[in-house]
Amino acid sequence: MSAPPRLDFTSDNVTGAAPQILAALAAANHGTVASYGADPLSAALAHRAGEVFERPVTILPVATGTAANALALSLLARPFEAVYCHQSAHVMTDECGAPEFYSGGAKLIGLPSPDGRLRPAALVEAVEFARSMGVHHVQPAAVTVSQASEWGTVYGLEELRQLTAAAHALGLRVHMDGARFANALVHLGCSAAAATWRAGVDVLSFGATKNGALAAEAVIVFDTALADELALRRKRGGHLWSKARFLSAQLLAYLDGDLWLRNARHANAMAQRLAQALTALPGIRLAQPVEANELFVAMPATVASALRAEGFQFYDWPPPAGVAGPVVRLVTSYDLGADAVDALAAAAGRVTA
Amino acid sequence: MSAPPRLDFTSDNVTGAAPQILAALAAANHGTVASYGADPLSAALAHRAGEVFERPVTILPVATGTAANALALSLLARPFEAVYCHQSAHVMTDECGAPEFYSGGAKLIGLPSPDGRLRPAALVEAVEFARSMGVHHVQPAAVTVSQASEWGTVYGLEELRQLTAAAHALGLRVHMDGARFANALVHLGCSAAAATWRAGVDVLSFGATKNGALAAEAVIVFDTALADELALRRKRGGHLWSKARFLSAQLLAYLDGDLWLRNARHANAMAQRLAQALTALPGIRLAQPVEANELFVAMPATVASALRAEGFQFYDWPPPAGVAGPVVRLVTSYDLGADAVDALAAAAGRVTA
Amino acid sequence: MSAPPRLDFTSDNVTGAAPQILAALAAANHGTVASYGADPLSAALAHRAGEVFERPVTILPVATGTAANALALSLLARPFEAVYCHQSAHVMTDECGAPEFYSGGAKLIGLPSPDGRLRPAALVEAVEFARSMGVHHVQPAAVTVSQASEWGTVYGLEELRQLTAAAHALGLRVHMDGARFANALVHLGCSAAAATWRAGVDVLSFGATKNGALAAEAVIVFDTALADELALRRKRGGHLWSKARFLSAQLLAYLDGDLWLRNARHANAMAQRLAQALTALPGIRLAQPVEANELFVAMPATVASALRAEGFQFYDWPPPAGVAGPVVRLVTSYDLGADAVDALAAAAGRVTA
Amino acid sequence: MSAPPRLDFTSDNVTGAAPQILAALAAANHGTVASYGADPLSAALAHRAGEVFERPVTILPVATGTAANALALSLLARPFEAVYCHQSAHVMTDECGAPEFYSGGAKLIGLPSPDGRLRPAALVEAVEFARSMGVHHVQPAAVTVSQASEWGTVYGLEELRQLTAAAHALGLRVHMDGARFANALVHLGCSAAAATWRAGVDVLSFGATKNGALAAEAVIVFDTALADELALRRKRGGHLWSKARFLSAQLLAYLDGDLWLRNARHANAMAQRLAQALTALPGIRLAQPVEANELFVAMPATVASALRAEGFQFYDWPPPAGVAGPVVRLVTSYDLGADAVDALAAAAGRVTA
Repeated sequence: MSAPPRLDFTSDNVTGAAPQILAALAAANHGTVASYGADPLSAALAHRAGEVFERPVTILPVATGTAANALALSLLARPFEAVYCHQSAHVMTDECGAPEFYSGGAKLIGLPSPDGRLRPAALVEAVEFARSMGVHHVQPAAVTVSQASEWGTVYGLEELRQLTAAAHALGLRVHMDGARFANALVHLGCSAAAATWRAGVDVLSFGATKNGALAAEAVIVFDTALADELALRRKRGGHLWSKARFLSAQLLAYLDGDLWLRNARHANAMAQRLAQALTALPGIRLAQPVEANELFVAMPATVASALRAEGFQFYDWPPPAGVAGPVVRLVTSYDLGADAVDALAAAAGRVTA
Repeated sequence: MSAPPRLDFTSDNVTGAAPQILAALAAANHGTVASYGADPLSAALAHRAGEVFERPVTILPVATGTAANALALSLLARPFEAVYCHQSAHVMTDECGAPEFYSGGAKLIGLPSPDGRLRPAALVEAVEFARSMGVHHVQPAAVTVSQASEWGTVYGLEELRQLTAAAHALGLRVHMDGARFANALVHLGCSAAAATWRAGVDVLSFGATKNGALAAEAVIVFDTALADELALRRKRGGHLWSKARFLSAQLLAYLDGDLWLRNARHANAMAQRLAQALTALPGIRLAQPVEANELFVAMPATVASALRAEGFQFYDWPPPAGVAGPVVRLVTSYDLGADAVDALAAAAGRVTA
Repeated sequence: MSAPPRLDFTSDNVTGAAPQILAALAAANHGTVASYGADPLSAALAHRAGEVFERPVTILPVATGTAANALALSLLARPFEAVYCHQSAHVMTDECGAPEFYSGGAKLIGLPSPDGRLRPAALVEAVEFARSMGVHHVQPAAVTVSQASEWGTVYGLEELRQLTAAAHALGLRVHMDGARFANALVHLGCSAAAATWRAGVDVLSFGATKNGALAAEAVIVFDTALADELALRRKRGGHLWSKARFLSAQLLAYLDGDLWLRNARHANAMAQRLAQALTALPGIRLAQPVEANELFVAMPATVASALRAEGFQFYDWPPPAGVAGPVVRLVTSYDLGADAVDALAAAAGRVTA
Repeated sequence: MSAPPRLDFTSDNVTGAAPQILAALAAANHGTVASYGADPLSAALAHRAGEVFERPVTILPVATGTAANALALSLLARPFEAVYCHQSAHVMTDECGAPEFYSGGAKLIGLPSPDGRLRPAALVEAVEFARSMGVHHVQPAAVTVSQASEWGTVYGLEELRQLTAAAHALGLRVHMDGARFANALVHLGCSAAAATWRAGVDVLSFGATKNGALAAEAVIVFDTALADELALRRKRGGHLWSKARFLSAQLLAYLDGDLWLRNARHANAMAQRLAQALTALPGIRLAQPVEANELFVAMPATVASALRAEGFQFYDWPPPAGVAGPVVRLVTSYDLGADAVDALAAAAGRVTA
């Protein structure tokens, strides 16, 4: 007898670990190996990452996305400097000031846009203002982009290149918060290299937890000269595991056989399936394009209530600029069954009928 | 055919995870649950910790001991304050300044002693000096004790109570770095409560990784009023797992059926077995009493070399005060076979003959 | 022969020190006295401040307004907490992240309004959002108001009480950036007590430099329990003068014979005189009400250029919301002659004719 | 009628300002000038400092020695790095953790010696230990020397060169805490350049307050590439005066006509005069050589008490290694009369007779 369809669409972090990840932990669990990252699996991961990104990289695994982002930004901005981000960015609103903590007090400056993606013009204006202020204002050092964005949208490659070119022309370095990098990548349909350093990204927070890992993310630095500093900052932050093989094993399994891409493709496909079903219904429309595995859906409050009464779980969300009325967020994931999507769609059909 | 005896005595963190811990991860891996610690296993852990410590406690799991220590100390010392520790303490020499980072720059002040354990008189003297300096010196806030200590010794209960009483009389709070707390506890043969808050400990770093967990430690605060601040600091440090069930599951399995105590008893017994065998040999003697799972052994350099030539691994260690000649550190662990101990002892017998 | 009228209207910090302040420095310069604030003048200042504010206060002098603000906020917000301010506040845009530095990374969150003064409703909304986010967001701790504001406006007493009441009801403490406190106070025409702690202010940055001191500000804390922490933070920030008498002497002279109020009344009167003259001219109007010693004046770019061609100095300013066209800032000061005001007015008359 | 001889030998910071310094403040106090260091006096100071040090330098004035030291060290050590100093250094024991604050948590590591001066061998050993620890230990970045030292001794030029050469060979940069730099310089009898950058000093805290300024020190950086960072850090620390002319005026007057050297010569001469008189008495001897303006004098407790009974003021001091019995510190200063020295000597003669 199969399990009933999942009712929980609150987030992709309510899921467990993919079976391949758990199996990799078990496989790594024999014998003694050198601690703190001097083990063979950690060496293998560094090599594998170089293959995936088609160049030597520094990759340092950590257990959380907040750690990855904060460590990454601490490499790019000194305490008296500024990091520009979208006003809705996770680093700005959801990490309890971790970037400020790790950077020693650098200032995040949020810029607006309707879709979660930064515009070069807004960046240029903000940087020019800061520079005009001299020592009285924190000075521009970096920009961070969320790919996919907090609104479930994905920077196009050309759009990304224009932004990073503007940043580099201003002397800023570029960080990408890739908590859902795999979902963005399969949407773009390009290589990991094309989506990152070839598009001007200097440092990447490479997410895996939302897409099937138990607890594994990584800071990936394309400038390997930063490796020593990153290693010291990771230790100082308490993010260097003594039994480091168990982080590396997760990430190796995540990359092995393109598990990461297969998982993300499935999550994105479920998002598309759900979007198509819902937008066919009266009174329901998308508040943002669906490009990864998140849907922001405008629906009458009565519809949301009726769905919750049937057991479905999801968050209300503040509407984006230009969208009237209540909005909810629905998140699909690597292990969400099509039955669950269809069940939600069917329920929505009933309650809007 | 069984595996050959282990040759690696470098540390207890070269081990993998105990099978019960891995099984608990697998058992926790089904269905969706609320993220960030709002899951049933995390609730169960809080309840279980209250039973183990015989009072309500705040327990916040993290993945590393450095994180636990640094978070704990950040609760006890403000940036302009001092934390007193043994000069050899892990927080002082092995955590890349994590306590300074998490506390915002509080100063660790190392005090000497021959055996890794702090003396009340040295603490009193240091505190009185600081207070005599007024605003010119960081002001005393806390003392941290390592139990077991960096020298493998264990504070006796009465010794600990005298130290914590002195600290409290001075207005300081007391942290215990319990990276090897289980090893100390089974040596003392008392309850967890007797070894901590009943002996004057305010905050405990509760270690599990060295004693069988994959990656799991916890900050345990006996003053539950500190819970909110600790939760915010953990998030800010990037140590709140989204899939928090996988930290809680490890710690629950660690406590279940007294796995932690059984593992520690075994490790300590192996240390005693090794100590007895080695000290029966000519030219080998203990540089410190063996009270937990670490041996500091004075032996001729030629003996150490000969053992390494046979494949055994262990670290040279700076001799403690009053001990002449080379010293090595040998660490036993929860999963070290008696065969390995006996093999090392036999080899030592051969090379000293 | 008298000096020609002053042409510099850029700021009140281009002035020198009032003669009474310099005389006080000379008078303080005899004999040896205890250093670091244990001198008689520092004791006298503490007593005098208690008289001025009609209650015991902790007053710690420092040399700059940035130091006063940053130290004050460090008392009110822990590193994982938020301070709400106007988006144009000096602490937000003009202090190079000093509040973040001194607080260990607390986050300033800017709120909009057209006139530089915070509205209770905006504060309530922002605090409620933060609290809804739990550990994922920095948690509300304090609000800071600039009195006079960055737009030269002054909170009315009832307006201020409503804001501080809202803040206190939310559990926040209230800081006032009083870089131009004297100018605001003489506008309000009430006592220093009525304008601060009786209106709900917990900590005041008490400015003197812009209004006649050489370099002297003070943090004034109405909760004297914070005195010890403030003293340690000041020393740690490098703001405790060894020859502290020379800070205290400035502030005593500033308060003596109501010099501070007389200076501020003059500066404000000059601002009014200038406002009346300019607004009588065609094409010139105020972009904000003139309530202290700053004027924000909308005028055609050609007028501004023509005035500069005659030697007058002043800054262009980004127009406030709802004001079209170019805006300039004109600042009067304690020592600005009426002849200078009249000369500028006359020039404006010529160039607009 | 002349004033009675001074009785206060506690410190050189109990003095007021030299008359030339006060006169310079008055002379600077006319007209409006650009604020925040864009004034002519600040430009003149930069030029003058270049002359004094015989090369282009970056000089940024601040009001306190703690600020100068902490800012200087923040340029040299990142948060995860170590600064080596003498265990008695002012930065270690007397600045309430300001270096840790400004550097974002870098660790000061104190090294012992009997005379307040660091030895190359001790530095090498400490650095090698840190490097052997890899990411587990803060990594070496800088060494700071106090010239004159906390024990009133002065590094010889060759001694200093050997130390800085060792530091540079290890990849460390060198800071000099010159709170009493002028006193050391006149003892050495060489140029300011010879005593600093030509001897391997990278950054200097240039003291003036103890030697006649009202409140003025400076960070002098010989590598002008650090100018931008220093200016931002100074502002962020709240140490950029709006009326910056009043800091620059003090330092210009301090350098003008070699006032600084004349003042220091006098203070040192008074120290020699006192040393000669005291050491001629039975039971009194020097605990350290007198090379600047501080005397550490071993004398029976009964003698110290008797002198205090006559009104003389000075501090007891912990005896240096190898000196038995009570030690007191006596400090001379730029404005101490020979009559005061002779009066103290005479009193000592009486009480030891």
